[in-house]
Amino acid sequence: MKSLFKIVQFAFFLLPLIAMRADKPLRVIFFGDSITQAGVGPTGYITQMGEMLKAKGQDSQYELIGAGIGGNKVYDLYLRLEDDVLSKKPDVVFIYVGINDVWHKASSGTGTDADKYVKFYEALIKKMKAQNIRVIVCTPTVIGERNDNSNSQDGDLNQYSKLIREIATRNNVELCDLRKYFVDYLAQNNPENKEKGILTSDRVHLTDAGNKFLAEKMMDALVKK
Amino acid sequence: MKSLFKIVQFAFFLLPLIAMRADKPLRVIFFGDSITQAGVGPTGYITQMGEMLKAKGQDSQYELIGAGIGGNKVYDLYLRLEDDVLSKKPDVVFIYVGINDVWHKASSGTGTDADKYVKFYEALIKKMKAQNIRVIVCTPTVIGERNDNSNSQDGDLNQYSKLIREIATRNNVELCDLRKYFVDYLAQNNPENKEKGILTSDRVHLTDAGNKFLAEKMMDALVKK
Amino acid sequence: MKSLFKIVQFAFFLLPLIAMRADKPLRVIFFGDSITQAGVGPTGYITQMGEMLKAKGQDSQYELIGAGIGGNKVYDLYLRLEDDVLSKKPDVVFIYVGINDVWHKASSGTGTDADKYVKFYEALIKKMKAQNIRVIVCTPTVIGERNDNSNSQDGDLNQYSKLIREIATRNNVELCDLRKYFVDYLAQNNPENKEKGILTSDRVHLTDAGNKFLAEKMMDALVKK
Amino acid sequence: MKSLFKIVQFAFFLLPLIAMRADKPLRVIFFGDSITQAGVGPTGYITQMGEMLKAKGQDSQYELIGAGIGGNKVYDLYLRLEDDVLSKKPDVVFIYVGINDVWHKASSGTGTDADKYVKFYEALIKKMKAQNIRVIVCTPTVIGERNDNSNSQDGDLNQYSKLIREIATRNNVELCDLRKYFVDYLAQNNPENKEKGILTSDRVHLTDAGNKFLAEKMMDALVKK
Repeated sequence: MKSLFKIVQFAFFLLPLIAMRADKPLRVIFFGDSITQAGVGPTGYITQMGEMLKAKGQDSQYELIGAGIGGNKVYDLYLRLEDDVLSKKPDVVFIYVGINDVWHKASSGTGTDADKYVKFYEALIKKMKAQNIRVIVCTPTVIGERNDNSNSQDGDLNQYSKLIREIATRNNVELCDLRKYFVDYLAQNNPENKEKGILTSDRVHLTDAGNKFLAEKMMDALVKK
Repeated sequence: MKSLFKIVQFAFFLLPLIAMRADKPLRVIFFGDSITQAGVGPTGYITQMGEMLKAKGQDSQYELIGAGIGGNKVYDLYLRLEDDVLSKKPDVVFIYVGINDVWHKASSGTGTDADKYVKFYEALIKKMKAQNIRVIVCTPTVIGERNDNSNSQDGDLNQYSKLIREIATRNNVELCDLRKYFVDYLAQNNPENKEKGILTSDRVHLTDAGNKFLAEKMMDALVKK
Repeated sequence: MKSLFKIVQFAFFLLPLIAMRADKPLRVIFFGDSITQAGVGPTGYITQMGEMLKAKGQDSQYELIGAGIGGNKVYDLYLRLEDDVLSKKPDVVFIYVGINDVWHKASSGTGTDADKYVKFYEALIKKMKAQNIRVIVCTPTVIGERNDNSNSQDGDLNQYSKLIREIATRNNVELCDLRKYFVDYLAQNNPENKEKGILTSDRVHLTDAGNKFLAEKMMDALVKK
Repeated sequence: MKSLFKIVQFAFFLLPLIAMRADKPLRVIFFGDSITQAGVGPTGYITQMGEMLKAKGQDSQYELIGAGIGGNKVYDLYLRLEDDVLSKKPDVVFIYVGINDVWHKASSGTGTDADKYVKFYEALIKKMKAQNIRVIVCTPTVIGERNDNSNSQDGDLNQYSKLIREIATRNNVELCDLRKYFVDYLAQNNPENKEKGILTSDRVHLTDAGNKFLAEKMMDALVKK
């Protein structure tokens, strides 16, 4: 029984390699909001990931596709899942959504309740897994860079991040714990406890440094197997 | 060309009749929120519609199915469209949603932006029409029964109702203008300008009289062809 | 008893005249939010009122003072009542506040509940009347210029306007029903049912035309006795 | 210069003692919201403080007065400051407000902006100090008892607590850091990370244990000099 599991596990880890060997680059879609929309800009995180791969001579092995739209919440991703993801037959999908689900509660009264956030998130995963897509779920980064849990939405962001960690476990998908990475980084690198200007330009959207940091974490998640 | 259109039109109006003739009752789904969930209760509007049909000896010609879940907004309907509607192969679907999309802005910061309301609404219609379902869209009734446009959400309810009327025209589906019916009724029948107690018990959910009024309007919409 | 009331009433109406006769101009303070803050600008409503008085050769009879601060709600007025109004010993005060009390509910979750709006409003009036100030209360104008009650905040603005009308009656102070004037004007002069561009530049703040319209209505209220 | 300061300081610490010596009990007002309103109930924190004093035979030395009203925010305290506090000539006032200022943002769109929270808070202190009242400011306790900063309002509560600590320093008044005490307690005594049921019955209002805990902390603050 145990050895069978080993084999299955082996096959699972082999899947990307097989895809690569077939001379077909691994198609990776980044599915998200305005941060991901900006990710394909000149210094965006997806662009930087492409450059990192190029520097390692691996750029022909990956096809990185941005699928971010500003203002998107989890249910917006669900609405455009077929058109923007499934129809493109990706091998890997990063789901990186949640900032607006939390933020819009305060800024326009149109955020997403936690229980519905989970429901739509798991519906996304289910449809992707049915198509054998390798899914990597990301916790939402930050709304404000203060490092003492005193940004207005910290409580909600922490809660939604916990929910995503539970979703990852429950659905057996990989986790890229961006919020943890950001929070840990800011604990070390924000001595003046500023609201913005370290990894973000405006409390949410990323500076070049923020995009670089994100690119590294996403890359780790992508190639860790 | 014109005569072809006539034939198509004729066929369209005939569809329900054909369905009836085949001894198969017309399957009607009411797709909505808590008002529709309560609609199948002892005095609910769907129950009352059933009784109205029985009184006319037409109860064997219709199968009325409630598909309402409390707290639902337009995107919740979209999430459960396949399971709760499409898989049941209905002939007719009433879409009656919008109260929570507006209300939750104020009560929990989790309402629905107008543009997204329209997007999801039209996505619902598109999938139903692809299955040749006769779709009847309803404007949201009331949050508060004051008849001088001084209920807090009247502005938004009026706006979302206009959007639904436009959706009906643009997508060529039938309209059951519940908000107009309610507002007109309250203009005549709420002389003390009370917040609740005429058609609703709590500003939103229906009294027996409210359910009866709704049943009559829905019935008119259902059988008008 | 009745004649005593007549005398008192006569004295009340005479007060402004007496003030004028004493060669001391009537000191009028406009107490409000950003609309009033802009009111002292080159084309602001207070500036235009000054020009209207000048054209009639009455500018020496009135001293018009703007006391508007952007973002102010009714309780902000209460906090600065002593410093910005009472200490200046005005003869007349226009209270024009409520837009932010309603608007901020949706835009930042920091609006004012209706019951507290009334409480603070009446506290303002009470302190002004204790100093024999002639108080003129204004209903809040508009958030959006659509003329069919489909601007998101129309319900609340209508409700708060009703509360102010009741406050005027209950406290025996004059009413300048700005919302009614604006709504009536837009019913006639917004044929395309636009959201902005008639009396406001951005749904709230006034165009030159809006300032002119407001100046005329305020002037009517000021000199009607 | 330094010795003068010593004397002043000495006099300051002596004040309560003097008051007591004069056989007049120290009048202490608890100024706050529903938690304080419940504080005078059979097991409320003020009642428990009274019992603690009685057990020590000191009940004749203190007069404890509850002045809490449900739903109150900082500006509500300001509105009733004269009637409910200043006119009663207290020796000591605990200001314990902030829960609703934060909470109502999400629950009804009528919370208090941080900058205005500070403004009204300092206006309260200024008026009390002008009457030589010893002011003790309290940070807001909790909305939810989870101990990992994942309660929705934790970010805001942490922020408002920081603001109060700054207010205490800037205005030279005493601080009773209730939020810190609660958070520290829950870190030790909420092993299952429950939302409620430890110090609160409903995430906000206090259980008997919560009232007892609060009573002890308040008592420490009251008698520490």
